Amino acid sequence: MSQTLTLDEIEDLAKRVLLSAGATADAAASVARSTRLAERDGIRSHGFLYVPIYAEHLECGKVARDAAPSVTITRPGAVRVDADNGFAHPAIDAGWSAFTDAAKHSGIAAMSIHNSYNCGVLGHHAERIAEAGLIGLCFTHAPASIAPSGGQRPVIGTNPFSLAVPDGEGGVSLVIDQSASVVAKSEILLRSRTGEPIEPGWALDIEGHETTDPDLALKGSMLPAGGYKGFGVGLMVEILAAALSGANLSTEASPFSGTKGGPPGTGQFFIAIDPDAFGGPTFGASMARLCTSITEQDGTRLPGGRRRDNRSQIEVKGVKVDDALLQRIERLVRS
Amino acid sequence: MSQTLTLDEIEDLAKRVLLSAGATADAAASVARSTRLAERDGIRSHGFLYVPIYAEHLECGKVARDAAPSVTITRPGAVRVDADNGFAHPAIDAGWSAFTDAAKHSGIAAMSIHNSYNCGVLGHHAERIAEAGLIGLCFTHAPASIAPSGGQRPVIGTNPFSLAVPDGEGGVSLVIDQSASVVAKSEILLRSRTGEPIEPGWALDIEGHETTDPDLALKGSMLPAGGYKGFGVGLMVEILAAALSGANLSTEASPFSGTKGGPPGTGQFFIAIDPDAFGGPTFGASMARLCTSITEQDGTRLPGGRRRDNRSQIEVKGVKVDDALLQRIERLVRS
Repeated sequence: MSQTLTLDEIEDLAKRVLLSAGATADAAASVARSTRLAERDGIRSHGFLYVPIYAEHLECGKVARDAAPSVTITRPGAVRVDADNGFAHPAIDAGWSAFTDAAKHSGIAAMSIHNSYNCGVLGHHAERIAEAGLIGLCFTHAPASIAPSGGQRPVIGTNPFSLAVPDGEGGVSLVIDQSASVVAKSEILLRSRTGEPIEPGWALDIEGHETTDPDLALKGSMLPAGGYKGFGVGLMVEILAAALSGANLSTEASPFSGTKGGPPGTGQFFIAIDPDAFGGPTFGASMARLCTSITEQDGTRLPGGRRRDNRSQIEVKGVKVDDALLQRIERLVRS
Repeated sequence: MSQTLTLDEIEDLAKRVLLSAGATADAAASVARSTRLAERDGIRSHGFLYVPIYAEHLECGKVARDAAPSVTITRPGAVRVDADNGFAHPAIDAGWSAFTDAAKHSGIAAMSIHNSYNCGVLGHHAERIAEAGLIGLCFTHAPASIAPSGGQRPVIGTNPFSLAVPDGEGGVSLVIDQSASVVAKSEILLRSRTGEPIEPGWALDIEGHETTDPDLALKGSMLPAGGYKGFGVGLMVEILAAALSGANLSTEASPFSGTKGGPPGTGQFFIAIDPDAFGGPTFGASMARLCTSITEQDGTRLPGGRRRDNRSQIEVKGVKVDDALLQRIERLVRS
């Protein structure tokens, strides 16, 4: 059994759970907004399902309730944010206007965030940069789950990158948002629960041998999409989001799940580029020709196509939420 | 039969060929230097083998002999270079000091190049940024050879990206330099000449079906490493190096081989980041721990390991050059 909620209801309920668990008003508003955006795009793993985990992490101290992000503008194009072991979202918000203003002024700027946490759907941060008329190029890392080619022990996380391109009218013409692994770890967790085997090529066991057993995979490592080249992309993300930002490395971060290990202390690195500073007036037309060269071919779609389809449906029809999840969330709201 | 040349001899001979073919002194010096670096790292496809092609392209007008690159500093962190349909290397040189100075000042800067040409080994540009104490993140594109997932017609080139990290002592601690395709196009050309089949998963025929026939592959498209995620990485490169820089798109560029079609008009996009503006003093130690977490595992190596091995050998032992190639190159030098 399920009920249908509007996106406003989703956001409001998420915010009340977060406030009840002791989040600051800023953090609650920002994380609730990200929950809304995930549900809007049909990315359920980062939506309502995550709200009880946020509450749990505020309770156990993986996320500091009283975190106060601090922003340092270190150079005309460089913004550094210490998330103070709170949520990533309010830390990103804290540096946001300095970051995007710097990009408009300098043509390019970057913002690093450390002592941070899971930032939710990375593409939404890139889209927000694009909505400001800038190209957004975002990197975030996660506790280690992918081994280097030829190795056995995980070194990098599923480490996604995201690129979003402004459409010149306050919207977004294209979003790429992809992790380094062949499949999401959540898919392997699901197969472990249902007892289904995983596909060959998804993961290795603890000794570095390919496995179709989800439980052995969870003790081993995830395979990167594209072999050593996929690892190379994840390593680029690790260098920027973890090493450069001053965060813990993926091998050093506590898990994003469960209650053990204290704050993960992960990081993010975001770049914003003003297209007017480079290609200038030809950029929009070039992007249009590039997108058409893809979409005019049968059987193709632009990256992010499924999210856009979900968005247009869910904004109208709302979100179906399982009764058990809804009751669990409602119990977390203190009256 | 072959002869062994020193790297100095390689560079000198390349320079004399380029000057004989009408390159400016700046262009000849810069392209000859890139030939030296390619041979030093054992990347023969971009080394001496390419010198006759450079000469041919100066003759046929794919590269303008009298090109005069022009540099515009559009914003405090943004440098735009018009390569004037000459070689990429002197255009990159022309903007170089403005670009790296801007990165040191602003914490991050970018340089775009348009009306450009094949820039040789992309990683060498990223390494040069790293040798200035900055993180180099470089993108370049090439005539279209990879189709979007589900499609048949190539839209992006083998579009590499490269990341190089400074070691804090004027050197480089790590270089990633990888193209978007499963294998280099030169490997498929080689198989076509020798009549050997290619491996499954390397390329598609003109109708989008997988093929092991190198000739059908050359008429069709190359497959990206990692399926749609590999295409996504190449698309990121296309957006930055082609659309943003104001260059031709990969679908619009004339081939990098042969004499037809005039200047390719491709582009590059380089980003330089000052680590001191972000993680600061922890960056070097984090990079060291990250590299160790890879190299301490049996069977692994850091990206770029083969190049480093070649370099240490070739700097001492010199370069073996086939007699036929050497004679061909010597004939191109006008006395």
